[in-house]
Amino acid sequence: MLIKISVHELKETLTKILSVVDKKNTRLILNFIQIQASGNKIEMTATDLEVSAKVTANCIVEKPGTFCVNAKNIFDIVKELPEKELTIELPEGSNNLKLTCGSINFTLLIYTSEEFPHLQFGTNANEFKLNTFQILEMINKTSHAISNDETRLFLSGIYLQEIDGKLRAVATDGFRLALVETELSNNKIEALINGIIIPKKGVAELKKIAEAYPDHQIGISVDESFIYLNANNTYLLAIRLIAKEYLKYQAIIPKKTNNHADIDKNSFLNAVRRIKIMANERSNGVKLIMKEGEMTVAANHPSLGDAFEKFPINYSGKEFEIGFNAKFLMDILSIFGDEDIRMEFNNELSPAVIRSTKNQNYLCIVMPLKL
Amino acid sequence: MLIKISVHELKETLTKILSVVDKKNTRLILNFIQIQASGNKIEMTATDLEVSAKVTANCIVEKPGTFCVNAKNIFDIVKELPEKELTIELPEGSNNLKLTCGSINFTLLIYTSEEFPHLQFGTNANEFKLNTFQILEMINKTSHAISNDETRLFLSGIYLQEIDGKLRAVATDGFRLALVETELSNNKIEALINGIIIPKKGVAELKKIAEAYPDHQIGISVDESFIYLNANNTYLLAIRLIAKEYLKYQAIIPKKTNNHADIDKNSFLNAVRRIKIMANERSNGVKLIMKEGEMTVAANHPSLGDAFEKFPINYSGKEFEIGFNAKFLMDILSIFGDEDIRMEFNNELSPAVIRSTKNQNYLCIVMPLKL
Repeated sequence: MLIKISVHELKETLTKILSVVDKKNTRLILNFIQIQASGNKIEMTATDLEVSAKVTANCIVEKPGTFCVNAKNIFDIVKELPEKELTIELPEGSNNLKLTCGSINFTLLIYTSEEFPHLQFGTNANEFKLNTFQILEMINKTSHAISNDETRLFLSGIYLQEIDGKLRAVATDGFRLALVETELSNNKIEALINGIIIPKKGVAELKKIAEAYPDHQIGISVDESFIYLNANNTYLLAIRLIAKEYLKYQAIIPKKTNNHADIDKNSFLNAVRRIKIMANERSNGVKLIMKEGEMTVAANHPSLGDAFEKFPINYSGKEFEIGFNAKFLMDILSIFGDEDIRMEFNNELSPAVIRSTKNQNYLCIVMPLKL
Repeated sequence: MLIKISVHELKETLTKILSVVDKKNTRLILNFIQIQASGNKIEMTATDLEVSAKVTANCIVEKPGTFCVNAKNIFDIVKELPEKELTIELPEGSNNLKLTCGSINFTLLIYTSEEFPHLQFGTNANEFKLNTFQILEMINKTSHAISNDETRLFLSGIYLQEIDGKLRAVATDGFRLALVETELSNNKIEALINGIIIPKKGVAELKKIAEAYPDHQIGISVDESFIYLNANNTYLLAIRLIAKEYLKYQAIIPKKTNNHADIDKNSFLNAVRRIKIMANERSNGVKLIMKEGEMTVAANHPSLGDAFEKFPINYSGKEFEIGFNAKFLMDILSIFGDEDIRMEFNNELSPAVIRSTKNQNYLCIVMPLKL
């Protein structure tokens, strides 16, 4: 094999797939990426068997070829090269890959390609498209609520479901829930009607592909075990789905609420961030005291002291106190822009609903704390 | 006590002393800072008994007072306050310190001041002044060579010594050494003629005080156990010296060298940074191959491959190879600006000397590696 490629292009390409490479060292070959050079491009593939990525870069292929190379090692090298042209050569029958960039020379020991897993990057079934801003909105508005509990694997991802012709993304850890809906270009997608769960690592890669192509349509298809993404035919992902039933999350969402308050998001977030300093480190508990026209956020710490802050809100219900984990409130409030949020309650033991007063496609649920 | 202070000023002041506060939790009181309000200022003091700092901030003192408050806790609070005026009140006979900033209220449990250690921040003996750029030069050019070996405590600091009317700073870990000299405003300072060792944490605080007062004279005095620093009478440090004999470092500096090469620093540093990728992770060893007019930096790794890079240098001695720890070379080369450096050798087993071809007040020694 003999190719010439711009160091800049190679660096960009490696950056895209490096995060997919297996960190757990389960099998040596998974520390490698497969490189295939033919036509006027190279394809690079990485996988940890859960998430796989294939990216394509332009280059001059003088002799085609296929081999595997240690991912971290080649990235460490390319990162430090000057942004010039790089010649990559694998002499016939040799295991020594030669990288030459001006007066800089590297020789890397390679693996032949046979050991690298055979991967699939798409299916014809269940195809649809999403704009990358839709993908980013779904991820950014729900990922804070993904569970970290390893004993409840089915909650450690984002659940996607088609409901009434819209695509709904849900995440919950049992203490809070986030739900966002977006338009689907075509509907009645069977796999989505049943619902799929994208695991956390897959969500991170999905975010990466969406960020790499701002305001761009991504082709998506789903089969029994995988979701496949295709950006421009140059950046492909295959993400293994979590093969479990998701939680019956609808039961968590209150059917109706008695009370609501409209609150300036920044005042609320700033107060919670400050008062949290005096919350018990274990519970992170802060108390919200609602009065007509006013909210007080308060906390007290057994050994440090206590704190409270008042600010005006739009509320005309009865006086009432409710406790929350300050970290959960901050996670939720951080998602909203500079807008008013509406907080809906039933009583101090029932979950509260937080949503924008304007935008109705998104809601968060948070369980109260007994303080 | 009752004072009014700008949140901005209080935050700046706390930032200065927070790094001094004890992290090891040896005694509860060392997690606290002492605050003394009188006249039109407050003084804040922190110590871990090795390094102590006292900083002064302007404020309106309506009623003077003295107390101790948890350092991290008050800093966490002040960091999150809006940049307005803060009222701090300790009612007579109370343990509850009240912080009020607009509608934000904190109450902190305090300690009385009796338990806080009595600290000294100066002596009249051995007074001299250094400009902060001199202090920063000494630290920045030597601190990479400070030892991390806990069994050789006497090497885990910077050694300061007066020699021929100049102040010399030395650091070494036995594998490399850095030495820099600077002018002294007045000389024959007894404590410095014998030499003192400033420990690593003290060096970090010294750097902080110097960075806080760019191009400023700092008053320095030394007694048997401490070095005292005074910036503007508003930022004082007392650093306990390492009470040990320093290494007879002069023996490490070659009296004469046979060969030297003048080398462009950037070419050298870039080559070492790149070729290091193929160095053995344990030794970090890279080989320098010197030929007339040319240097090659080379490395080979048992399982990854090998690498070399050539570039022109000014050298007319005999052909010769010498190995070094790439990390040590990078540490040293990073210190120099965009200038040529001179590398002086005797043979592949003797220490090499690296200095600027222009600036003669600084030199580094590095021991070779057998590769």
